[in-house]
Amino acid sequence: MPVRALVFDVFGTLVDWRSGVSGAFRDAGLPGDPDELADAWRARYQPILQEVNDGARAWGTFDELHLVTLDDLLSERGITVSPNVRRRLVRAWHQLDPWPDVRTGLEELRQNHLTAPLSNGHIALLVDLARHGDLRFDCVLSAELANAYKPAPKAYLTAARLLDLDPSEVMLVAAHPSDLAGARAAGLRTALIDRPQEFGPTTGSRTDPDADLSAGDLHQLAQLLAQPPG
Amino acid sequence: MPVRALVFDVFGTLVDWRSGVSGAFRDAGLPGDPDELADAWRARYQPILQEVNDGARAWGTFDELHLVTLDDLLSERGITVSPNVRRRLVRAWHQLDPWPDVRTGLEELRQNHLTAPLSNGHIALLVDLARHGDLRFDCVLSAELANAYKPAPKAYLTAARLLDLDPSEVMLVAAHPSDLAGARAAGLRTALIDRPQEFGPTTGSRTDPDADLSAGDLHQLAQLLAQPPG
Repeated sequence: MPVRALVFDVFGTLVDWRSGVSGAFRDAGLPGDPDELADAWRARYQPILQEVNDGARAWGTFDELHLVTLDDLLSERGITVSPNVRRRLVRAWHQLDPWPDVRTGLEELRQNHLTAPLSNGHIALLVDLARHGDLRFDCVLSAELANAYKPAPKAYLTAARLLDLDPSEVMLVAAHPSDLAGARAAGLRTALIDRPQEFGPTTGSRTDPDADLSAGDLHQLAQLLAQPPG
Repeated sequence: MPVRALVFDVFGTLVDWRSGVSGAFRDAGLPGDPDELADAWRARYQPILQEVNDGARAWGTFDELHLVTLDDLLSERGITVSPNVRRRLVRAWHQLDPWPDVRTGLEELRQNHLTAPLSNGHIALLVDLARHGDLRFDCVLSAELANAYKPAPKAYLTAARLLDLDPSEVMLVAAHPSDLAGARAAGLRTALIDRPQEFGPTTGSRTDPDADLSAGDLHQLAQLLAQPPG
């Protein structure tokens, strides 16, 4: 079956979360290396989502979970901040810049495919990011609509159901092999986008031999999708 | 509180369902007046949604419900059609043209407000309509995400929750006073758009003295929203 819809991971795949979040730490004037603080905050992301998926923690939006993980991080470092700074740091995740290929790449991909983010971020956050980066999608999909975070199969299957498509007609586009593996386990197709700067200059290239397609950016993905199969 | 988001009824408010559906009856060459068939099909819409809201019928997408009401209508008229024609008639609801002000009016309203359809139609149908009419929204909201059809309060409240807004920060824009009344009961603001051609030349103008705003089209609504209150 042909690929009808492209659904996109957002943090790291479409937007450069690290520059935006470390910039917010820098603006707040906190002690320590802003890049390192951003990485340490992000490192608390998978564990807290896992707690939710395991039923050990009630569902929370990204704003709510970011507040919990920020407080844990700051408390561990012995850093005290005002409620205002705390709020600004959580809001920084709503104002992240897209990678340079993303705005025009999404326009190109929309010509022949349905497009939607499929992020663990909640709808309101994704709407803010799309408006901030002037990104056009056909609709906005989120783990919030499944009450299950990626890589749980339900997160991907809910997206396919809402698009009224068979999972095999939907392709997840993501920079993270773990996300692509989750999508494949749910029956979706997968495309890796390499983002060698996601964690700064030392990230390096990623590969996923099991992905249907691998591309350096969204324009290259559009070229690959336009090629006849085989 | 200021209005942060505008959510739009779709069938009748943004798109001219009657011309599209009667055109599909005309193309199918069925006996009878195509306009009258379109009206008779649409008249079966509220009752079947009410059955779902009452728990008397399982949740169905608009495609599924349109198939049920089409079969009832054709059977009542003693009309037999091929599976192909049946499918094309149901698909006609995915390819309806917007009213002339809608594409540019939505662009104008997006400058200062979040915008989303909030329709009883399912997400996949709304995505097709938006692509067909080149309509840009910030996200796509639907009764499908609440498992409750408008005017049930849950349909409106789920939309506000997903936008992370207080209901009073959300304004429903609709051509139908019953929809606006449902939104007000859920705490939303309301704007009436008059669509005097919805049911053809005899529809006449609608008014709603309880609406916060009343406008003849989306451009006029943008003007009204730009005026200082009071």
